[in-house]
Amino acid sequence: MDSPPAARVPKVFLVRTQIDAILADLAEGDSVPSERELANRFGVARETVRHALRELLVEGRIRRRGRGTVVSRPKLTQPLSLRSYTEGAISLGRTPGRILVAWDDIAADDPTAADLELEPGTPVMHLERVLLADGERIGLESTYLPLHRFACLRGSYDPTTSLYAAIRATGVEFAGARERIETVLAAPREAGLLECTTALPMLLLHRRSVDADGAPVERVRSLYRGDRIAFEAMLSPVSA
Amino acid sequence: MDSPPAARVPKVFLVRTQIDAILADLAEGDSVPSERELANRFGVARETVRHALRELLVEGRIRRRGRGTVVSRPKLTQPLSLRSYTEGAISLGRTPGRILVAWDDIAADDPTAADLELEPGTPVMHLERVLLADGERIGLESTYLPLHRFACLRGSYDPTTSLYAAIRATGVEFAGARERIETVLAAPREAGLLECTTALPMLLLHRRSVDADGAPVERVRSLYRGDRIAFEAMLSPVSA
Repeated sequence: MDSPPAARVPKVFLVRTQIDAILADLAEGDSVPSERELANRFGVARETVRHALRELLVEGRIRRRGRGTVVSRPKLTQPLSLRSYTEGAISLGRTPGRILVAWDDIAADDPTAADLELEPGTPVMHLERVLLADGERIGLESTYLPLHRFACLRGSYDPTTSLYAAIRATGVEFAGARERIETVLAAPREAGLLECTTALPMLLLHRRSVDADGAPVERVRSLYRGDRIAFEAMLSPVSA
Repeated sequence: MDSPPAARVPKVFLVRTQIDAILADLAEGDSVPSERELANRFGVARETVRHALRELLVEGRIRRRGRGTVVSRPKLTQPLSLRSYTEGAISLGRTPGRILVAWDDIAADDPTAADLELEPGTPVMHLERVLLADGERIGLESTYLPLHRFACLRGSYDPTTSLYAAIRATGVEFAGARERIETVLAAPREAGLLECTTALPMLLLHRRSVDADGAPVERVRSLYRGDRIAFEAMLSPVSA
């Protein structure tokens, strides 16, 4: 857990700058030279190159493909807004998709009960889905809904489509939400579902949405691959 | 870079749940039992315990102190709003502080020039500061200001105080900003300044602020320790 010795800092930085220059001349999907090839070319240790490549992987500038590494497309930048993932992805010209992992009724834990204004242990509807952009797994979303409001979705809703559209179709209007953003490492199960490693930083979002009466609509926990997505907010002045 | 074998998943999860239960009975600053002690108590490999403790470190639930590990205070949750770090920290009851790292004029690179609506290479004022909360290093902020607007700060501004207050004192009103949030690993120099390792996930924010005329005021790049800080946004309905 110690920082690398100060003497290594300029070398890693130099190598990173050189690799950046190589990437600037490549297009999306082009092969990145191998670790060994780069180490030879720059006359540095393979460990130094590995460090720089690891940074670029986490930043999403490059990605593994089979045994090699290729240049990635830029991160998907989602606006922080009261929309569903599906709606956000479409507005960015990406094709959204969802894979259903679980759809069950579970007992609300303390944070879920607090967000949905229920007693802890009350059954809630739980929907867990992998989020896709152009077929690629980029997030894992768990939605918790109060059963007394949304049990009706059971028979009618197709969980590979937008849940927000289905909720609105029941007459509910989303009036506001609080969203918390932090960074975590994926748990092994989550890394498996997102086809990444547990060493990749993720963005973790928690959302609580309310309707026009201020009554809770949902609690959502979303985990996004940090190398594939960024969020953007438009900020207005606050009263002092 | 491979995921751990599926057989390990339930054991890590079980150990994590057991450690969570231990932490629930401890107060901030209390010592966490050692890796060896926990491995003995649960009858599992030390590597399994290490994995669970690493998750808790990244989540900010525990922290290193000397050779041991103690329970942390909860993450500082900053609202995403058009305020400075200083103003946000005060509103949360934390004592903000700043350590000046650099204050110089540099040639604008392409993204800085684009944000400030200047030609690339134009000199801009650059202010780099470590952000403190209650004396602890939690972020690193680089602000880029157009020289033609803010050269006046040179003689009067104390860089350990709020820059936003100083900018407002020149008659500029912050009217809006765009903020991008993503997760990255710290570069070695950044990890050194934030007294953390390059394996700790960080939150990276880029902000571009404009005044009431829509003219650019600043570009800011902020890197926050992911184990110490989270952000929160209040979302309103968007027109469809």
